[in-house]
Amino acid sequence: MRKIIVQKFGGTSVADTGKIKNVAQTVIREKKNGNDVVVVVSAMGHTTDYLVKMANDLSPTPSAREMDMLLSTGEGVSIALLAMAIQAAGYDAVSFNAMQIGIVTENVHTKARIINIKTDKLKKNLAEGKIIVVAGFQGVTEDGEITTLGRGGSDTSAVALAAALNAERCDIYTDVEGVYTTDPRVVPNASRLDEISYEEMLELAHAGANVLHPRSVETAKQFNVPMRVRSSFKLDNLGTLILGVNNMEIYKPVAGVAADLSQTRIVVCDVPDVPGCAAKIFGKLAEDNISVDMIIQSYARKVSNTNDIAFTIDSADTDKAVATLNQLKNDLHCGEIQVNKDIAKVSIVGAGMIDRPGIASTMFETLAKQNINIKMISTSEIKISCLVNKEDAHKAVKALHDVFELGCDEVAEVKGDLPPV
Amino acid sequence: MRKIIVQKFGGTSVADTGKIKNVAQTVIREKKNGNDVVVVVSAMGHTTDYLVKMANDLSPTPSAREMDMLLSTGEGVSIALLAMAIQAAGYDAVSFNAMQIGIVTENVHTKARIINIKTDKLKKNLAEGKIIVVAGFQGVTEDGEITTLGRGGSDTSAVALAAALNAERCDIYTDVEGVYTTDPRVVPNASRLDEISYEEMLELAHAGANVLHPRSVETAKQFNVPMRVRSSFKLDNLGTLILGVNNMEIYKPVAGVAADLSQTRIVVCDVPDVPGCAAKIFGKLAEDNISVDMIIQSYARKVSNTNDIAFTIDSADTDKAVATLNQLKNDLHCGEIQVNKDIAKVSIVGAGMIDRPGIASTMFETLAKQNINIKMISTSEIKISCLVNKEDAHKAVKALHDVFELGCDEVAEVKGDLPPV
Repeated sequence: MRKIIVQKFGGTSVADTGKIKNVAQTVIREKKNGNDVVVVVSAMGHTTDYLVKMANDLSPTPSAREMDMLLSTGEGVSIALLAMAIQAAGYDAVSFNAMQIGIVTENVHTKARIINIKTDKLKKNLAEGKIIVVAGFQGVTEDGEITTLGRGGSDTSAVALAAALNAERCDIYTDVEGVYTTDPRVVPNASRLDEISYEEMLELAHAGANVLHPRSVETAKQFNVPMRVRSSFKLDNLGTLILGVNNMEIYKPVAGVAADLSQTRIVVCDVPDVPGCAAKIFGKLAEDNISVDMIIQSYARKVSNTNDIAFTIDSADTDKAVATLNQLKNDLHCGEIQVNKDIAKVSIVGAGMIDRPGIASTMFETLAKQNINIKMISTSEIKISCLVNKEDAHKAVKALHDVFELGCDEVAEVKGDLPPV
Repeated sequence: MRKIIVQKFGGTSVADTGKIKNVAQTVIREKKNGNDVVVVVSAMGHTTDYLVKMANDLSPTPSAREMDMLLSTGEGVSIALLAMAIQAAGYDAVSFNAMQIGIVTENVHTKARIINIKTDKLKKNLAEGKIIVVAGFQGVTEDGEITTLGRGGSDTSAVALAAALNAERCDIYTDVEGVYTTDPRVVPNASRLDEISYEEMLELAHAGANVLHPRSVETAKQFNVPMRVRSSFKLDNLGTLILGVNNMEIYKPVAGVAADLSQTRIVVCDVPDVPGCAAKIFGKLAEDNISVDMIIQSYARKVSNTNDIAFTIDSADTDKAVATLNQLKNDLHCGEIQVNKDIAKVSIVGAGMIDRPGIASTMFETLAKQNINIKMISTSEIKISCLVNKEDAHKAVKALHDVFELGCDEVAEVKGDLPPV
């Protein structure tokens, strides 16, 4: 039985026909290894931006259904072109969109979740020796409505296909060489991890490491699909393998450090200490589809018998959240609503910190030595996050990367500017 | 029971978002008339050229299947945008591609013919009061393969939908104001026909009038769907109605004059006068998918006992046809193969010429008076075509238009350059 490898290439990897030819070579390379290959691609480069711009020309609020109809055409172009490029290089290939395969999703537009993937057409075509090119990011409902999967969609398509086909591995080709102990633009001697567990990768992704959307990692974890994050350009570099924690020996307590600069802290002051107030706040925010990350409720003040409730959200949701909270103000009898965008969440992540006491205190001491004030703390089994002033974020990452001995001797090669603080 | 009107807009009518807004208004105007509306659109402006260019960058001979996958995305974009534009103007609309509806075609790529159209989804959505926007030019096989319909595809989609839905009428919106007695760029006082029969329209289309592809007219005739060719810009102008001949009184023997400047004449000289030679020639050309128009075989010469066989083809097929004939040369024992591109086919068309003798002789005399040499003649019940030198084509059209009294007092308003001779 031949092994199946699922490969995924993002929009920048297929941005023009020259790049599509390169992707075809990478695909063929895997086929020559003796594996069956299923390739998932995103829309070409700026196609999505272009389509969204036209939609906005026509309507300030285009319907979600028609946006999905529109955006799904983007991958329709890239799959056909990649199949042609593979054929031109002498290999048999066939492209399918999500409707043709049956990548069945729930009936929700712009952010549908995959329910089921039909594999008969895929298996038949693989058995005929064909390389299969599949449209990422899109799905179809049982009723034949076209849906898209939202952020991290193409990665999720690839992992879900790998799960459905019981593939050997899902390779995510990208413009970085793998998962690093921290952002190499901040810490130049950050080292590339050869392996990382699903859990650690999830925590790193949630903590602000942008290499993978947590959703694809969750799916990989659920179906135990090994994922590899690797470079589209340096094919001999195997990148980082993400897999179940049982397969791994843990040498270091902390696997990585990440900073998330895109959060905003909101404090609802003087909330009366009566039952149900927190439920009202977070229930209403959830209704409005605003995800809340860290939450802290202070002890009730004896005199006023009120609490301050502080939490962080994605900065993009700030206006919506403030509007929601202002609506609640009379009902809650609360005080001022404070908004602070000048914050950053700095996290350390590692499965090795389970049952190793002292990691948290080392983190706090390290930040204290750097004169960095900690505003909020949240923890999970394998992650500790501290909210700090945004201007301290890079300094915090460097110090933590150092103290947990994550650096290597080499300087990582990366492109792009330092993330702004 | 509300009447259903099918409307079709070509690529130039939806070339940008501004034009799409105009189309939305035209659609809504019909809805306000109290009709149910199904709109068929082509890909935006130069989308197809752009997609073909990318395909050719990747492969000199991209597979037909992948070309269909690629090109079908073009209408995917325009249908979603038009649905958004209609919604933005306050009307309920929904877009569907061919696969969602079930526009079932034969399993042939790049020029599939429609077998069947499923109407349940269309009827359900019309019953809910929605305007339906459908992707033209594309279909799907019973196996879920995406096909395209080839030349005249979107017009054919619209007519076939009108037939399947038992629509009141199929309106083809275009950049001309209807069907004219001849090309108004050649004869400025050409008059617009209010009505024309399917048969006459078919002959005119085959004779080189570019306003409609004969295929869509054939489908309309087969299912007796009234078609209207009308202007996208002058909505109060009703254009030309194309319908069954029984509905019409025929005032004039000739309805229109057309010239086809895209033909090439080929003469196979000295073909031995033995049975089966013509069958060999035209059989082989048919195998190679080359359509032959006029055919003349001379009387066998007594001395050599050979014929000359002359015929016309689309100029685009010339190289292919010559190659095919050269392969046959030894087998046929024929002489030289002559090619002449400097020819034009000038035709008069009219259901009124049935049972009115003298029309043909009037045509020949008129051309003779102009000193125009006739190289070949072919006739049908309602059409007479003469092959002339290309340089005489416009002069011939003007003279024939005059002699059969087709002109009106006004000068037709048209854009575009005179067709080259």
